[in-house]
Amino acid sequence: MPSIPLLLLVAGSLVLSSCVQSGGTKADPSSRYRGPGYGGESWSSATPSASPLSMEELGLLRSTLFLDEEQVALLRKSRDILEPQVEAILDVWYGFVGANPHLLASFSNSAGVPDTAYLGAVRKRFGQWILDTADAEFDRDWLDYQYEIGLRHHSTAKNVTDGADAAPIVKFRYLAALFTPITVTLRPFLESTDASKAEVDAMQEAWRRAVLLQVILWSQPYMSATEF
Amino acid sequence: MPSIPLLLLVAGSLVLSSCVQSGGTKADPSSRYRGPGYGGESWSSATPSASPLSMEELGLLRSTLFLDEEQVALLRKSRDILEPQVEAILDVWYGFVGANPHLLASFSNSAGVPDTAYLGAVRKRFGQWILDTADAEFDRDWLDYQYEIGLRHHSTAKNVTDGADAAPIVKFRYLAALFTPITVTLRPFLESTDASKAEVDAMQEAWRRAVLLQVILWSQPYMSATEF
Repeated sequence: MPSIPLLLLVAGSLVLSSCVQSGGTKADPSSRYRGPGYGGESWSSATPSASPLSMEELGLLRSTLFLDEEQVALLRKSRDILEPQVEAILDVWYGFVGANPHLLASFSNSAGVPDTAYLGAVRKRFGQWILDTADAEFDRDWLDYQYEIGLRHHSTAKNVTDGADAAPIVKFRYLAALFTPITVTLRPFLESTDASKAEVDAMQEAWRRAVLLQVILWSQPYMSATEF
Repeated sequence: MPSIPLLLLVAGSLVLSSCVQSGGTKADPSSRYRGPGYGGESWSSATPSASPLSMEELGLLRSTLFLDEEQVALLRKSRDILEPQVEAILDVWYGFVGANPHLLASFSNSAGVPDTAYLGAVRKRFGQWILDTADAEFDRDWLDYQYEIGLRHHSTAKNVTDGADAAPIVKFRYLAALFTPITVTLRPFLESTDASKAEVDAMQEAWRRAVLLQVILWSQPYMSATEF
């Protein structure tokens, strides 16, 4: 039987001390996520969101996901590798969505015609999302921003930011399933430097944990407080 | 820029042909998931479930998750390795849950006391789940069984099977987050044979895709048909 470090079993208590931060529940209008981002696109919204989740609850989620400070360092290490490749990564991800009608449907109107302006605006925010994920600033500001991303995929705020004529909601099943194409297709980009296979393995795993954390946070508007 | 196989971009159409099967929407009372399972525990339920999802929709989910026949073969290959280690794997997973109060809460009553009979019954079904996941029979019977697992985590049917005195629901955030402890701690068990690192990498990735598929299917009772 393989040995499992005891460390793993008490991950909850170990991570908590480093990632619980004080913080209110009111969204900050001066959030760094509301200024100009990648490609000049802004996250600004007329209805700023504030995640109902507390920083303590975020800490428990992080600990369950083994998303500790070592993982944060790996994500930040990946930023230097990924930043010059953002457009190429987006080409792959948009190619995948475009080739799959059930995914492209989220960008299309009831007649099945994709909204190209909407696709373009989302692409810039998707580029910023790559950098934000690699920045791994899991603070109150970031948590509120995740809640807003969830709202913008849910019918609550879908299409509003861009005045898009598209499906009224992104089905949660596909929002969650994109975890795999994103984390799998990221690998060759991580491999394009002199990082060793072990280092690439570690960075890719850190990305998995960070993306899963976000998928979970984005699910919040899809269910009641009791269910989430 | 790394090259991305075109294959990946049209995964949707490639996988579909092999995994769409005909099948009704009525749950089959003679389902193999209702007979005696691991440790003699049965899935039998007074209220058989039938997943609202069609086999075509399951096929689209599988294709989005790159869960093709190659992945099925990898899962089945892992079965021979994992079956003799089921108890040891459960020791690790139960150790993790037991060490984290926010996870153990799902098995505890309102006074915070864990229901040991409930923990024991769930453990046997968890053992069977390892074997079922490795079997990778993604048919109508399996799909209905996933829906029932979702219902039993949701307030719809939580505690009913075992007459447990425990929390009325498993919070979705933790149900989804367990993806990481499960797929990470599985690795040393996959490594305990003479499989090469590349083979272990591939089996672990197949497990990630199969577990994520199930997490997504389990989320269905937590939201409306439109949202899912």
